Amino acid sequence: MPNTLPRRALLSAGLATAAAPLAAPARAETAPELTWRLGSGFPKNLDILFGASESFARIVGEATDGRFRIQPAAAGEIVPAEGLLDAVGSGKIEIGHASASAAVAKDPVLALATATPFGLNARGQSAWWLQGGAAELFAEIFAKHGLTALPGGNTGAQMGGWFRKEIKNPTDLQGLKFRVAGLGGQVLAKLGVSPQTTAGPDLYAALESKALDAAEWIGPHDDEKLGLQKVAPVYHFPGFWEGGAMVLFWFNAEKWKALPKTYKAVLQAAAAQVAAEVQAKYDARNPQALRRLVAGGAQLRPFPQEVIEAALKASNDLYGELSAKNPDFKRIYEAMKGFRNEEYLWFQVAEYTYDNFMIRARARG
Amino acid sequence: MPNTLPRRALLSAGLATAAAPLAAPARAETAPELTWRLGSGFPKNLDILFGASESFARIVGEATDGRFRIQPAAAGEIVPAEGLLDAVGSGKIEIGHASASAAVAKDPVLALATATPFGLNARGQSAWWLQGGAAELFAEIFAKHGLTALPGGNTGAQMGGWFRKEIKNPTDLQGLKFRVAGLGGQVLAKLGVSPQTTAGPDLYAALESKALDAAEWIGPHDDEKLGLQKVAPVYHFPGFWEGGAMVLFWFNAEKWKALPKTYKAVLQAAAAQVAAEVQAKYDARNPQALRRLVAGGAQLRPFPQEVIEAALKASNDLYGELSAKNPDFKRIYEAMKGFRNEEYLWFQVAEYTYDNFMIRARARG
Repeated sequence: MPNTLPRRALLSAGLATAAAPLAAPARAETAPELTWRLGSGFPKNLDILFGASESFARIVGEATDGRFRIQPAAAGEIVPAEGLLDAVGSGKIEIGHASASAAVAKDPVLALATATPFGLNARGQSAWWLQGGAAELFAEIFAKHGLTALPGGNTGAQMGGWFRKEIKNPTDLQGLKFRVAGLGGQVLAKLGVSPQTTAGPDLYAALESKALDAAEWIGPHDDEKLGLQKVAPVYHFPGFWEGGAMVLFWFNAEKWKALPKTYKAVLQAAAAQVAAEVQAKYDARNPQALRRLVAGGAQLRPFPQEVIEAALKASNDLYGELSAKNPDFKRIYEAMKGFRNEEYLWFQVAEYTYDNFMIRARARG
Repeated sequence: MPNTLPRRALLSAGLATAAAPLAAPARAETAPELTWRLGSGFPKNLDILFGASESFARIVGEATDGRFRIQPAAAGEIVPAEGLLDAVGSGKIEIGHASASAAVAKDPVLALATATPFGLNARGQSAWWLQGGAAELFAEIFAKHGLTALPGGNTGAQMGGWFRKEIKNPTDLQGLKFRVAGLGGQVLAKLGVSPQTTAGPDLYAALESKALDAAEWIGPHDDEKLGLQKVAPVYHFPGFWEGGAMVLFWFNAEKWKALPKTYKAVLQAAAAQVAAEVQAKYDARNPQALRRLVAGGAQLRPFPQEVIEAALKASNDLYGELSAKNPDFKRIYEAMKGFRNEEYLWFQVAEYTYDNFMIRARARG
């Protein structure tokens, strides 16, 4: 990287100091007092994801000198989590913070706005969204539901989950009662898994009673709170169905449109700050949580190569089926795949080679 | 990841609609009209890095309804790039946008606020800064220079640069006239390299005339503009001295302190939005540039393992020397190393395994 830069320019003579503060005119028309309600799709114990809503409210409040107040509520407090996007789209509340994939039953294309099996990693999802055309593609889809959205964080690559018995080959998936989300469940169903939608607080009991054989949740920081290593100690990785799961801030499209430009700019910048904070929290806290989980009995195991290969094939089959039925899915899936393949072409050079060496050298540096 | 969430809560009856806009009181005291000058450390042809200053000015203007105007200037236009941090620290201009490592000759600890040989990758640098204590550690250092700073983008892992002849073993580094920045140059000097500080626009001629044997710059997107593949076709990777180079927005500390809280919040959020944009632009544009470079004759080659191992040893020696002389360096280097080692402990599990599979499966997915 350059650390010496063109020297040809000379210091301009007589640098003016900054303009002194002037009395600002009252501009009530562009800075209305507003109070908006924000429903999170996440319960309070998912502290990083729920905390994103609290950070967002704080930043927007500070940046507007208290004129634009956002009131965050955890999942279920003002609207049920499963109806969150509808509540925002219909204007019952103004903002939501959730994964698009939470509404995947409504339209599978929404999964692509979060993460899909063998999709983009976190940096790729962000680059695709901000600079690769995804925001524009999804704006059309979201508009149908009365919504507009901004990126609001990413968990990074997730874990494959907690298993009572190690998965050694694809046959071990047969009949497995596995709590697994969204398109990942549909992929695994093709391999004989029986996907379940057990809620987080019920996972421990379900694994203990053998109502479940396995459960994926997020990653070390959030998983640790569930204590699943005591009842399902094999901790498989990676969660190939969520290589970098993005969450979004959702806005009622009409109310967004009516905002003054200045507030739109504040919301956009605040969402970006929150997104960086969410990623940084996961990256800073997952390592310690992983250490504690392993000390507490978690047995870290990669999914066998044969299992991941079978899942890749099943995913490609699923994408073919969804694309045949759903032109939006086909169009946006193809765009994602194109971006992903180019991204990994480049990632395999400097980025991956660097990480590869650093992982091996970690103990020596 | 959860896609079904607690169902226990019921829709609260009678959701109030958002408060209607009220006339806002004039608050001239908290929203002064300001014009600040921003000196970029980057010339205009580093379009992503210089573009960050333009985006920052636009966002701050929009978010403050035009009250806070920021006037960006490219490197050398209002202050020479090499004097940029001094110009901000002394209050000649209010803002700079540059790598801390540009001032590494003043204090080597500044390199740690950008990237160091075998340091953090881009996500790690961000997590260390935002959630791992680095911002607080550096705030003390920067205050000595009259500065305060916010993250303002990251290039991602850089390339190792352009070589007229392939480096096949550490002996090939002997006497090599290599344009290489900062601590990377000091590391390579221990291996016999003669580090040079040739400016970007002069690299082509210097390589062609054999005044230089090699030159590193940034990565495919920025390197492509220099056309170096025609005179130094071997494109080595990775740039192990910059695994994820962070740039910062710098503010004059006194002027920052005097800002109303609302403007501080706007600057912070705007910087985060710009940082995400910078990373996304590099991630979206590097792949295409890499393809074009290879089509134009660039020969991609990893640095031999033996060379990287020798550089790791030389880096650890350098860190020992710098730590013995400079207590700030020792303290902050140890903090970075601790964070880095934990981060890679976790990255090697889900994140790296996912990327590893995706790189291999790219052509099949």
